[in-house]
Amino acid sequence: MSARAVFYEGERTFRVGAGDVVPPAVGDVRLDVAFCGVCGTDLHIAHGAMDHRVHVPQVIGHEMSGRVAEVGAGVEGFAIGDAVVVRPLDSRGETAADRGYSHISRNLKFLGIDTPGAFQTSWTVPAFTLHRLLPGTDLRLAALTEPLAVACHDVRRADLAAGETAVVLGGGPIGLLIALVARAAGSHVVIGEVNPLRVAFARSLGFEADSVPRVGEAGADVVFEVSGAPAAALAMTELAALRGRVVVVAIHPDPPPVRLFDFFWKELDMRGARVYEPEDYERAIELIAEAALPLEQLITRVEPLERLPAVFAELANGTSDIKVLVDCST
Amino acid sequence: MSARAVFYEGERTFRVGAGDVVPPAVGDVRLDVAFCGVCGTDLHIAHGAMDHRVHVPQVIGHEMSGRVAEVGAGVEGFAIGDAVVVRPLDSRGETAADRGYSHISRNLKFLGIDTPGAFQTSWTVPAFTLHRLLPGTDLRLAALTEPLAVACHDVRRADLAAGETAVVLGGGPIGLLIALVARAAGSHVVIGEVNPLRVAFARSLGFEADSVPRVGEAGADVVFEVSGAPAAALAMTELAALRGRVVVVAIHPDPPPVRLFDFFWKELDMRGARVYEPEDYERAIELIAEAALPLEQLITRVEPLERLPAVFAELANGTSDIKVLVDCST
Repeated sequence: MSARAVFYEGERTFRVGAGDVVPPAVGDVRLDVAFCGVCGTDLHIAHGAMDHRVHVPQVIGHEMSGRVAEVGAGVEGFAIGDAVVVRPLDSRGETAADRGYSHISRNLKFLGIDTPGAFQTSWTVPAFTLHRLLPGTDLRLAALTEPLAVACHDVRRADLAAGETAVVLGGGPIGLLIALVARAAGSHVVIGEVNPLRVAFARSLGFEADSVPRVGEAGADVVFEVSGAPAAALAMTELAALRGRVVVVAIHPDPPPVRLFDFFWKELDMRGARVYEPEDYERAIELIAEAALPLEQLITRVEPLERLPAVFAELANGTSDIKVLVDCST
Repeated sequence: MSARAVFYEGERTFRVGAGDVVPPAVGDVRLDVAFCGVCGTDLHIAHGAMDHRVHVPQVIGHEMSGRVAEVGAGVEGFAIGDAVVVRPLDSRGETAADRGYSHISRNLKFLGIDTPGAFQTSWTVPAFTLHRLLPGTDLRLAALTEPLAVACHDVRRADLAAGETAVVLGGGPIGLLIALVARAAGSHVVIGEVNPLRVAFARSLGFEADSVPRVGEAGADVVFEVSGAPAAALAMTELAALRGRVVVVAIHPDPPPVRLFDFFWKELDMRGARVYEPEDYERAIELIAEAALPLEQLITRVEPLERLPAVFAELANGTSDIKVLVDCST
C-alpha cells in the first residue's frame, strides 16, 4: 500500500493525502509507523497557536511506535523489523551556553513540531532519536512511551521517595501518568482536578481525586503543577510541606501570581521539568514492558489515520477522551 | 551603672528607660549586651507593621554580641565573661509536622520579636541560643553575626560553587552580605540595585553593580532575590541560566507575577531561604574571626543606646546608612 500522511495546513485544517517515503540519508533510519498518539501540543498546533514553529503544509505528531523499515549508511545497532520508539529531540544545535543540558538546549528542534512528524505511514528520522523496545512490547502501549517518559522525568526531577505524599494538580493525560509513576514509586498520590469527568476517571484508576486535594496537616512532600491554571499556581505553595518540592510541568504562557512568601517561609524548592532525557525513555520502556501501570485504560480510542482530521475537530469541541491513538499501520 | 533599655511602645514610638535585670532561670544565661544592630525587621516593627507579634511595651533587637554575665542552673559549657552571640530562634514548640526543620518550625519564636530583644544592657536568654565567639573577635563586628549567618544560609541553600556567576537583586545589608559570602566562595558576583547610593556603595566594595545587572549569554548560575520588588520577581527567571538556581531571600507580602514558563523552559530550580541553622552561625563566626570580609565598611554608624529612638526616626526618613550598630555597653 502506498504511503499516506495527514498534513496540517493551517488553523483547524488538515488534509489526508499521499505521504513521502523519504530514503534514509547517512545516519538516518526510515520507520514504518505503527501508532501515534494525539498530544495536547498537537491540539495547540491544530488551533494555530504554534504557526511560528510549524511550516504548513506539515505532518505533525510525535507520540509514536513503529518498526525499522530501512537503515541509512553509517547507522549501527538497528536492523529492519526492530520495534522502536523515537525520542523526538534534535539537539545538534547545542552550544557551550547550554551547559550540557542537551534536552533543553536553546536551539533544540522538536520532531513533529519544528520538523515533520509521525502522523504518516512512513517516517524518516535520525538514528540517534531511536530507543529499542523490549521484547514482546505491545506497539499500541509503546505509543505511550513519549508521554510516559515526560512523567518519568517529572517524577525524577521531584526526587520523589517511597512513602512520600504527592499532589498532582491537573488530571489530564500527563497528570495521570505522573500519578501512576509516582504511585509505582511508592508514594501516596492525591489528584486535584476540577473537571468532574476527569475526577471520575482518576478515581477509576484508584486515586483520591477532588477539586480541592486534601493533604494532612504537614502538607505534601511534592506538588506537581500540571494544570496550567493560575489558581493552581497560587494553591501549589499552600499545599506543600516545610521544605516541600514543587515541580512545574505545565506551560503557563503568562506569569501568574505566585506566593513567593511561602517559598521564604517554608523554604520550598520549585523545579521546572521539560521533556525528558534518555534515561527517562529507558525507564518508560521498562515500565511498559513490565505492564507495571494500567496504561491500557488510558487509551480511550484507536482511530485510523484517515480519521485524524475528524479527531482533531472532535477534541477541539471537547470529549471525555484521555488518550486517542491513531493507527498509522494501514 | 543600672540597666537601661529601649522600649517599643507602638507605631513610631520608643522610650528609653530603666531595664530589667532578669536573673537566669534553669537553662538560661544572662548577658551583658555589647552591641546590637538595627535590622530591616526592626524598622518594620517600628512602623507598626508587626504589632500582631510584638506586645508593647517591648524591647526589640536581635543582631547582638555580648558577654555572659550570669549562668543559670543546669547550664554547662559557658562561664562568666565568655564572648557570645545569640541565635535568636526558640523552636521548643516544634512538632512532628515540622519534619525536623526546627529553624522554620511552625511554632517558632523569634527572640526580639515574639519575646524581648537585645536593645538593652542586660538580656536573659535560653543557653541553647548561644554561640561562642572565636578568641580575639571584635564585639562590634560580632554584632554582624546574625545577618551574616542569614547570608551564609542563603549561599548554602544556593549550592553555590567556585567559578559560578551569581546575581544578587537588592543591594541592602543582606544583599551585600550575600554578595560578600558568594565572592569569598569563589563566585563572580553582579549586584542589581536601583538606588544610586547603594549602587555606589556596592561598587566601593569592588562589585559590579547596576540597575540592570549584566550577565553573559549563558545567564547566571544563581540569582538571589533579596529586593522584595515585583519587578525583580519577574527579572529573576530571565537572568538565570539553563538549570539555574533562584534563591528567594526577600519577603514578598503579596504574590507577584512570576514567569513559571521560564521554570519549565529552562528547568530552573528556586529555593526559599529563611533565617539560619546552627552551622550557618558557626560559618559566620569563622568568617568574622578570619577577617575574611570587609565587614567594617558596612558599619556606617555606632550610636549610644539612648539615641536609638532618634535613629529609628532617622532611618524611617531615609539615610545612606548600611548598618547602624547600637552600643549597649554603657
